[in-house]
Amino acid sequence: MATIKDVAREAGVSVATTSRVINKTSYASEAATQAVEKAMKKLGYRPNANARALVSKSSNAIGVLVGDVSAPFFGSMVKAIDSIASQKEQQLLIGSGYHDPIKERNAINLLINSRCESLVVHSKGLSDSELTALAEEVPGMVIINRVVPQIANRCIALDNYKGSFIATEHLIQNGHQHIGYICSSHGIEDADDRKQGYLDALKHYGITPQEEYIEYGEPDESGGELSTVNLLAKNIPITAIATYNDDMAAGCLALLQENGIKIPQDMSVIGYDDGHIARFIYPRLTTIRYPIQVMANAAVKLSLELAKSPQVKPIEAQKLFMPILVRRASVGIAPK
Amino acid sequence: MATIKDVAREAGVSVATTSRVINKTSYASEAATQAVEKAMKKLGYRPNANARALVSKSSNAIGVLVGDVSAPFFGSMVKAIDSIASQKEQQLLIGSGYHDPIKERNAINLLINSRCESLVVHSKGLSDSELTALAEEVPGMVIINRVVPQIANRCIALDNYKGSFIATEHLIQNGHQHIGYICSSHGIEDADDRKQGYLDALKHYGITPQEEYIEYGEPDESGGELSTVNLLAKNIPITAIATYNDDMAAGCLALLQENGIKIPQDMSVIGYDDGHIARFIYPRLTTIRYPIQVMANAAVKLSLELAKSPQVKPIEAQKLFMPILVRRASVGIAPK
Repeated sequence: MATIKDVAREAGVSVATTSRVINKTSYASEAATQAVEKAMKKLGYRPNANARALVSKSSNAIGVLVGDVSAPFFGSMVKAIDSIASQKEQQLLIGSGYHDPIKERNAINLLINSRCESLVVHSKGLSDSELTALAEEVPGMVIINRVVPQIANRCIALDNYKGSFIATEHLIQNGHQHIGYICSSHGIEDADDRKQGYLDALKHYGITPQEEYIEYGEPDESGGELSTVNLLAKNIPITAIATYNDDMAAGCLALLQENGIKIPQDMSVIGYDDGHIARFIYPRLTTIRYPIQVMANAAVKLSLELAKSPQVKPIEAQKLFMPILVRRASVGIAPK
Repeated sequence: MATIKDVAREAGVSVATTSRVINKTSYASEAATQAVEKAMKKLGYRPNANARALVSKSSNAIGVLVGDVSAPFFGSMVKAIDSIASQKEQQLLIGSGYHDPIKERNAINLLINSRCESLVVHSKGLSDSELTALAEEVPGMVIINRVVPQIANRCIALDNYKGSFIATEHLIQNGHQHIGYICSSHGIEDADDRKQGYLDALKHYGITPQEEYIEYGEPDESGGELSTVNLLAKNIPITAIATYNDDMAAGCLALLQENGIKIPQDMSVIGYDDGHIARFIYPRLTTIRYPIQVMANAAVKLSLELAKSPQVKPIEAQKLFMPILVRRASVGIAPK
């Protein structure tokens, strides 16, 4: 493969001039620029991005840490970030942390070591203090879907509690008094906040929460299915089920219908996230919209801005994004 | 931020020795190694991955080109590759090409310029000759889900035709004679191959294909829904529908059930891919398994091997992976 020396020789200029042309670091004459570009083309010279990154101290890549890139929620998040990255001619460097502190730490370190100046981090495993220290090291680091109080102005998060309160309230307003809840078994704050929203909505409307109405599972379709099996097995008089997310709701719906339980005539089900799946399972899922695209957009824009001008004061106060009820066909009036 | 010079000064050794310790490029004494490691820790020195990549001529990253990282199919593919990458302590660099030649070319160039020595490429936009030229430049490049004849021994592909033949045959064996087909409107070979499998299966069993039984749409839930609307509007006597993929089948199922058409009593539907969604829509989808995880594993292993020893002759002949019928609940006996 041709080197920069070969290009300089072919162009008849010095290596330093050639480097200036390739890296656009400072002035080079029009004649030299043309000669170098012609030589690069002739020799099939491909500038080494790592070398350029060293010169510019940046890799031109936006680093993204997700939980699990194959989960639909993170797919939507990455796609939203990618669309901004393409506009800015930046590529994405993606790491998965699987909500595990060691994996998250390794993945973030790899991204930092690869000189990503912009980082959008979805971390559930690391402590507030570790994230704060990392954010000091990397001015362009932004946290998504979590509030770290020390760096709250660099956090883009959702009011998870409120969404679950709204979901449960919607079931109560449809006459349901015996409402089950399918919770994520992952011990992350999202799970706690969403469960608390369910509990508080019940109390707010004078309904006493019952521990046996709650089941826990992996936050996917299988977990939703298994939790539903466990709820049904208890032979409790529930007429509605609120869920941690749409994937669990999908597993729940499939299992109920296979057992001849009609949705929503016999049982109402409400999801959370309003992911792709919500619109295309049958019956179409009533759910809570998690505005992940809007939030991902906000996160990557803030991150690029901070990376460019770290001195610029970021948004004044941390602001929670709001979840919204999306009515479809899986919730109905409580049976008599 | 501390530099390598600061570390050398603190450790009381030369910069060259410090570099040898950090980059593990050649021998350094135990005492020097300890002194440098202590100094690195004290100064909070973080070795620059771009610099290390220049030394080693590799970025320690596996480059992956997908169509659209938010599509479930590519999510599964990336996850399978990521699990191998983690084992090898490599990170993933992911680009999306959206089946567009310009976007695919840009994304692959970025990955190559970032010195990914291993590349797993899902390309539908670039020509065979362009991919062949790229493969010559990058010994560790492997093509997934496509056969490029000139580099067939570096292609990991599925017999798309066969899968569709099997799907249609399964419907015929259940007594169906009037079988609709929902096809992807993307002009890629997968779409052509799968449609041809449907047509040939009909002919094989003495059924004359009818153009009006075929509808085209985006290869997602919305496209499947719209295609189903169009099929129903024609008032043709179909009793079964074969589809391009599971996402289209999901849109089809939701639309049919909303219109009171019972699955599979009134209409049988068969998917393709056996993605995550297939097991959790209702009724559970009978479909064709695309062994994407097995294939992604094979691709990344081959790619890492080729990047390490480009002289080693790769697998002798290109081999197609086989799709398999997965029976669930969306196909039944044709109504009288």
